[in-house]
Amino acid sequence: MKKLKIATIGGGSSYTPELIEGFIKRKDVLPIKEIWLVDIEEGKEKLEIVGAMAQRMVKAAGLDWEVHLTLDRREALKDADFVSTQFRVGLLDARIKDERIPLSHGILGQETNGAGGMFKAFRTIPVILGIVEDMKELCPDAWLVNFTNPSGMVTEAVMRYGNWNKVVGLCNVPIVCRKIAAGGLNTTEDQLTFKFAGLNHFHWHRVWDREGNEQTQYLLDNIYATEDGMSVAMGNVMSGLGKGEKDEAMSDSGVKNIPMISFLKDQVKDLHIIPCMYHRYYYITDDMLQEEIESYKEGKTRAEEVKRTEARLFELYKDPNLDYKPEELGQRGGTYYSDAACELISAIHNDSRVEMVVSTKNNGAVPDLPSDCVVEVNAVIRSSGPQPISWGRFEPSTRGLLELMKDMELTTIEAAYTGNYGKALQAFTINPLVPSGKIAKTLLDEMLVAHKKHLPQFKDKIAELEAEGVTYNG
Amino acid sequence: MKKLKIATIGGGSSYTPELIEGFIKRKDVLPIKEIWLVDIEEGKEKLEIVGAMAQRMVKAAGLDWEVHLTLDRREALKDADFVSTQFRVGLLDARIKDERIPLSHGILGQETNGAGGMFKAFRTIPVILGIVEDMKELCPDAWLVNFTNPSGMVTEAVMRYGNWNKVVGLCNVPIVCRKIAAGGLNTTEDQLTFKFAGLNHFHWHRVWDREGNEQTQYLLDNIYATEDGMSVAMGNVMSGLGKGEKDEAMSDSGVKNIPMISFLKDQVKDLHIIPCMYHRYYYITDDMLQEEIESYKEGKTRAEEVKRTEARLFELYKDPNLDYKPEELGQRGGTYYSDAACELISAIHNDSRVEMVVSTKNNGAVPDLPSDCVVEVNAVIRSSGPQPISWGRFEPSTRGLLELMKDMELTTIEAAYTGNYGKALQAFTINPLVPSGKIAKTLLDEMLVAHKKHLPQFKDKIAELEAEGVTYNG
Amino acid sequence: MKKLKIATIGGGSSYTPELIEGFIKRKDVLPIKEIWLVDIEEGKEKLEIVGAMAQRMVKAAGLDWEVHLTLDRREALKDADFVSTQFRVGLLDARIKDERIPLSHGILGQETNGAGGMFKAFRTIPVILGIVEDMKELCPDAWLVNFTNPSGMVTEAVMRYGNWNKVVGLCNVPIVCRKIAAGGLNTTEDQLTFKFAGLNHFHWHRVWDREGNEQTQYLLDNIYATEDGMSVAMGNVMSGLGKGEKDEAMSDSGVKNIPMISFLKDQVKDLHIIPCMYHRYYYITDDMLQEEIESYKEGKTRAEEVKRTEARLFELYKDPNLDYKPEELGQRGGTYYSDAACELISAIHNDSRVEMVVSTKNNGAVPDLPSDCVVEVNAVIRSSGPQPISWGRFEPSTRGLLELMKDMELTTIEAAYTGNYGKALQAFTINPLVPSGKIAKTLLDEMLVAHKKHLPQFKDKIAELEAEGVTYNG
Amino acid sequence: MKKLKIATIGGGSSYTPELIEGFIKRKDVLPIKEIWLVDIEEGKEKLEIVGAMAQRMVKAAGLDWEVHLTLDRREALKDADFVSTQFRVGLLDARIKDERIPLSHGILGQETNGAGGMFKAFRTIPVILGIVEDMKELCPDAWLVNFTNPSGMVTEAVMRYGNWNKVVGLCNVPIVCRKIAAGGLNTTEDQLTFKFAGLNHFHWHRVWDREGNEQTQYLLDNIYATEDGMSVAMGNVMSGLGKGEKDEAMSDSGVKNIPMISFLKDQVKDLHIIPCMYHRYYYITDDMLQEEIESYKEGKTRAEEVKRTEARLFELYKDPNLDYKPEELGQRGGTYYSDAACELISAIHNDSRVEMVVSTKNNGAVPDLPSDCVVEVNAVIRSSGPQPISWGRFEPSTRGLLELMKDMELTTIEAAYTGNYGKALQAFTINPLVPSGKIAKTLLDEMLVAHKKHLPQFKDKIAELEAEGVTYNG
Repeated sequence: MKKLKIATIGGGSSYTPELIEGFIKRKDVLPIKEIWLVDIEEGKEKLEIVGAMAQRMVKAAGLDWEVHLTLDRREALKDADFVSTQFRVGLLDARIKDERIPLSHGILGQETNGAGGMFKAFRTIPVILGIVEDMKELCPDAWLVNFTNPSGMVTEAVMRYGNWNKVVGLCNVPIVCRKIAAGGLNTTEDQLTFKFAGLNHFHWHRVWDREGNEQTQYLLDNIYATEDGMSVAMGNVMSGLGKGEKDEAMSDSGVKNIPMISFLKDQVKDLHIIPCMYHRYYYITDDMLQEEIESYKEGKTRAEEVKRTEARLFELYKDPNLDYKPEELGQRGGTYYSDAACELISAIHNDSRVEMVVSTKNNGAVPDLPSDCVVEVNAVIRSSGPQPISWGRFEPSTRGLLELMKDMELTTIEAAYTGNYGKALQAFTINPLVPSGKIAKTLLDEMLVAHKKHLPQFKDKIAELEAEGVTYNG
Repeated sequence: MKKLKIATIGGGSSYTPELIEGFIKRKDVLPIKEIWLVDIEEGKEKLEIVGAMAQRMVKAAGLDWEVHLTLDRREALKDADFVSTQFRVGLLDARIKDERIPLSHGILGQETNGAGGMFKAFRTIPVILGIVEDMKELCPDAWLVNFTNPSGMVTEAVMRYGNWNKVVGLCNVPIVCRKIAAGGLNTTEDQLTFKFAGLNHFHWHRVWDREGNEQTQYLLDNIYATEDGMSVAMGNVMSGLGKGEKDEAMSDSGVKNIPMISFLKDQVKDLHIIPCMYHRYYYITDDMLQEEIESYKEGKTRAEEVKRTEARLFELYKDPNLDYKPEELGQRGGTYYSDAACELISAIHNDSRVEMVVSTKNNGAVPDLPSDCVVEVNAVIRSSGPQPISWGRFEPSTRGLLELMKDMELTTIEAAYTGNYGKALQAFTINPLVPSGKIAKTLLDEMLVAHKKHLPQFKDKIAELEAEGVTYNG
Repeated sequence: MKKLKIATIGGGSSYTPELIEGFIKRKDVLPIKEIWLVDIEEGKEKLEIVGAMAQRMVKAAGLDWEVHLTLDRREALKDADFVSTQFRVGLLDARIKDERIPLSHGILGQETNGAGGMFKAFRTIPVILGIVEDMKELCPDAWLVNFTNPSGMVTEAVMRYGNWNKVVGLCNVPIVCRKIAAGGLNTTEDQLTFKFAGLNHFHWHRVWDREGNEQTQYLLDNIYATEDGMSVAMGNVMSGLGKGEKDEAMSDSGVKNIPMISFLKDQVKDLHIIPCMYHRYYYITDDMLQEEIESYKEGKTRAEEVKRTEARLFELYKDPNLDYKPEELGQRGGTYYSDAACELISAIHNDSRVEMVVSTKNNGAVPDLPSDCVVEVNAVIRSSGPQPISWGRFEPSTRGLLELMKDMELTTIEAAYTGNYGKALQAFTINPLVPSGKIAKTLLDEMLVAHKKHLPQFKDKIAELEAEGVTYNG
Repeated sequence: MKKLKIATIGGGSSYTPELIEGFIKRKDVLPIKEIWLVDIEEGKEKLEIVGAMAQRMVKAAGLDWEVHLTLDRREALKDADFVSTQFRVGLLDARIKDERIPLSHGILGQETNGAGGMFKAFRTIPVILGIVEDMKELCPDAWLVNFTNPSGMVTEAVMRYGNWNKVVGLCNVPIVCRKIAAGGLNTTEDQLTFKFAGLNHFHWHRVWDREGNEQTQYLLDNIYATEDGMSVAMGNVMSGLGKGEKDEAMSDSGVKNIPMISFLKDQVKDLHIIPCMYHRYYYITDDMLQEEIESYKEGKTRAEEVKRTEARLFELYKDPNLDYKPEELGQRGGTYYSDAACELISAIHNDSRVEMVVSTKNNGAVPDLPSDCVVEVNAVIRSSGPQPISWGRFEPSTRGLLELMKDMELTTIEAAYTGNYGKALQAFTINPLVPSGKIAKTLLDEMLVAHKKHLPQFKDKIAELEAEGVTYNG
């Protein structure tokens, strides 16, 4: 039986232990031969720390898997069966800029769909397209499993501009939505039918109980519209979970990455579908902004918190006796991501037919969006790839916002690919999280200059802006 | 735990033993309390024969299920959990007319999508809509599992004009396609990924192997384009099957219901998707017509053969010692249908997540067709109903034909519902299997008169036609 | 030859003299018999003043037309050939609230597409649907020519909920766009081909010169992206116009209704299509808001200015010697509207085939929007109604915003029709001019209470809000 | 003022006198400098005959236009302002094969949408794409006015594979439909509003009277459904026309190109839209086929008749005293075509805004077809090109057939462009006028061999067929 070579770009990430743990959990169904953790020169130290720990974890599990650490991406990609991406161009300092620069202008940064996320796309897309070019040469049959954010835009860019179809984008938000629903209905996830549709960090879902009766309205009325409801749901999520898991769940549901603020009751009661946590940025912008501005003033934006957490984690990882994923990783946020990646890899390899929520080609699943764009929907995972489940039409009250966001994504990735400044400004203009006009241009310009090092496609424009006196005083 | 009441309309059908066998096979997951076999006065004798046999089968299986026989549909529907429909308005004699009248004019009857199938829709739709009205009153939470042909049109009518969404249409053609592919690739079905899309008896499919590599082109080139290939595939299907199963498989694949004629190689080699057996009526009309005209002349149309088979079957069923499904039922054609119905009922009841190919609401799965119409696609069966899997766009060489057939269906069911003669003639006019012009009108008129008894919606028009001298001399 | 009866709902409007002038200008092609000016009790005094003046104007023109003044709408509608609507539910005081309440919260009111416009829709739609009900009974063959704002939403409501298809919505913004283009290209409008598409107050256009060469990019680069360019264009518009006309043109182009602020160059240079003046609310929100807040502080919102202008106009209208449209009406804003209504009536009556930009049923002209919704596009005006000209697909950078606005409109009119508070809050939530969250709800609630008298459909909710202590302290 | 150079490819056509007459009629608005009549070596003699006559016509009109005759296409195209195409690859002998070969198998040839028309597309598309390549180099700003049949497919090929957008396809069928409607309503065309939509030789239309009331149903009931009605309508068309014009009108309406057979009443009464004359091939196939088979047996297919008429015409043209279009040209069929080309050229040059029915890019005008394909619809002709008027959705009873025909066209032109034999067979398979199966392949193969000389793209396949023994014994 063929044994697998898995390459992980951004292998020096603090998430790596969860990824390794995920592989170990599935050791009976995943015949791994080699895991290649790749990183860049700047990430060498972290790669060595977390890589050594990964090797200890594998050893502790009694497995003969080879765990390679390398700065040579091409060596890692050669003949790989799966390539997973968890890299962060510009490291956490770039994310800090993504969040703090907008907030310094009184604007939400939002590292996935807001100004911050758009810049993350600007930085990431040229790099991922380079990886795809290498893959075409070195491992043309491999699957690319992306969980670098903004996961939807990155996946779309790989398909649209990289002409690479064997790619799946992952996200942990649907996983948390499922946990909340199970908590809210006082049952377990496997008793429920979920249907998700939309975009990465911008999807809605419906829920049915074991008897096939829809429980969507119940959840809207009793959980999503009240802070009490959310607390009860989260409490139920917590009970029955161990300490680390509790932290993980909490971190995802908002305490860590998103402030725990509920929707307005009247806002959701007639939606007929359940928004995701990230919709709060669009539905209750005022409260979200106020909360984030306070964090900003205290130097406690999510990016800064994550940076501190990471520092602590790497201290832990240095411990030569630590050979399991520490509970503290739960505080990092973004948990379930790496496990989802392992689950996906296993599902493809084993043709397991498990249903996951992934970013994949629409093909009509969301008929209100173009058939050839990337959407985030339920999909049955087969060895031939994800088979998306059709959602049907949206009502006007949600449809237009979804269509706008997709077009914001398409405009953003066009700017990321071409370096067209006008398209970048258009993307800022139509993004509901960015006020339009001079302020948008000011923000765009400052962020371009601030991220100069990682934006080769905008080089000329940045030079022009600097000549005009635009500076970043972060 | 709740125990199930299942009502089967058309319970006197010769298929009933397969249905009962299907339930018995699933006895561990289907907590049945009552099975109600319903039929009409004209079917009373058959109902009693096959009903008695059903009771013997249940008893032989050591089960305490109640098997009720009744002519009172409302009694059977009261509080039912599942209603399955396998009735045939006008019995087999009507089907004989459906096939022989067109052939007497040198036209294919085709009891599903041709003139015959359209008349079956005309007869069936008023009756199924009456059943739905009863269900709204007597069992508003029940699922309607339809395998009365034309299954797609009947399902569409139930949704569109009956406003009843808990309905699933079934067909055995995809099951046979799967078997052919497995045979052609010398593997088993569970090793393959299948994706079907289109309409009932008018769908295409793609196939991937266990490693995720598409095998569609291989099957087109090596199986579907050659008579040898088809024989080999069928041979492989046969080997490993018991005697009865062989007959069943053969009967479905064409020997019984459809003559075994292969596509033209050049016709399919650049299709990129695999047509179904019924596409032969549209792709190699000349050969199919010639074959059927010969059967017609010999009094051996499929309907006539089935009638003879049924007579033999009912003789067998009369045997008070027979308490299992006889092998001869395999010759009846339409096998797998009843088993599929059992599988579907079990899947909904148990939320089993099995993937089946069913007629269900499009919701974008086939973006080339309206979102709100019925299509036949892969769907994950949940307790909340079928979740269709998106197929994506068709190429022009198949798209237009599919769109035409859907509109032929929609025009047919509109005529069936309203009794509009002009719409009926339009449906005949656009159906590729019916030549257009005076001949179409002549055929339509003769069939209206011939089926007069079962076409209340066309009553006035039929009286007018008779006054004009139109007669049926069957 | 048949002579025409024209009924004008809101006949007491200060616009009426332009309307009468428009009819008089077309006296050779419009065989008018009767003009009925209708108003409500509160508008009786204005109706009498402006109605008397209308009678003087007709007399001075030497025409025998009857000009009737009435408070009995049904009498006016009886056997009418054309019904034009220019009424304002709640009069200008309601518009003042529409603009001042949002600005008191730091939010743009925007009387057409913003919070103000949405409330205008809430107040107007129940009334226009009542008019349509009367028309069905009293003048079922009449055309309804609507220029009550928000013209697009009102037209959509008439079609969608009134089931009345003989309706056309008018707007003067395209007329001003045409003048700017002609000015910018230093030519006359008749030398240019224009193509508009989008929604009322939210459309884009393209321009070609006499030789068929597209001049869109030239206008974007040289006119729309610079304040100088706009000034030059406006200057050209002015030259060659008489004093009154100059005021009119200026008032429309922004000096009166919209502050004269240009787009950002980088924002429009890669759009490939030209936005309308109202897009500035969405593209340069920051500047527009700042300008309006200053007006608000000075008690000089547009509504307040208009109220003062109207007071002056009605003083003028009282002059028994005034029998022509005074130049000062040009300052009122909204000029060209009434003349466009006359042009449209003449075009329908005479089957003149003139091309106008109107709100009408899409029918595919804008394939990115549903076929059955109302869009604002070029249309050839025939006696059978407007024939819309197809625009084709939008690029993502404009498509999503257009789709969002249409869905904001649909959600708004659904709320206006049903009185569903949740839909109203949703419409506020998705409108890009209204910040989302508690602030949106606060604004919505205060406006509901403030407009209580004219919102019968929200009566229960308003009572509830008042019980909760929501007040309006305008 | 710029003077025009017009190049006519296929200048040796018998139609040329009508074209010249059309230009002369418009001499006051068309500032022509040069007309270049281009033909190929085989057409040299006819070019010289008809070219000399053209020169006499221009001289007789007292005009100083230069009329050049040439076999050098590039010389003619150099700096042309308009290029019109009326060439026929393979001359009339090819058309005779297009009609007679299918009929020899009992199949309709139909030189526009049937097997004959498909082969005309196969022969024409490579040539027109060559012309477009020349135009890109020699006259990149020119408009291409195509009336070489199949006009819609040729236009689509120019846009889709030639990437040339300045092209308009013309047809005379809508002109005849207009005349029939005016005749049927006993009025003149200018009193009516027409709306056409569909494809070349496959469109439907609606008609409104001067008062804006729809008369479509009246025409369906009283004209299109009865032979008497058609006769009356044609009679009305005739009265008031001179002798030659009568022949022309008759020839178009069916006596010449299409047998005068009416639709079935019940077939059209509930269509709600009026089919065109060519729909008779699809709606009353049986009668049309019978009629054509009789013509075939007598050696009087339309192609053969046209050949005889042409021979007579060229005898006339040789008369050095003939300097006007002879009445006999009316018998040729296809009249109005050349005049429509002149009208179109004049309309573009003069930005005349006249409404014509042309083949142009859809852009949503027919939302049931892809936005980027070519449709035949009403369009306002501007100097920037045709502006299509939106039609809206079709009903299912017509939609599917339209979609099928578009896809037949797309598949045909793909085969024409690529030489893919499988696609050619697919196009034959889905065309409703060609029976499917072995017969289709037999027909395709024989026609390929018969037209061998003009099908370079199928060269290898034809060689293969010949090696297999396929022959043409015409």
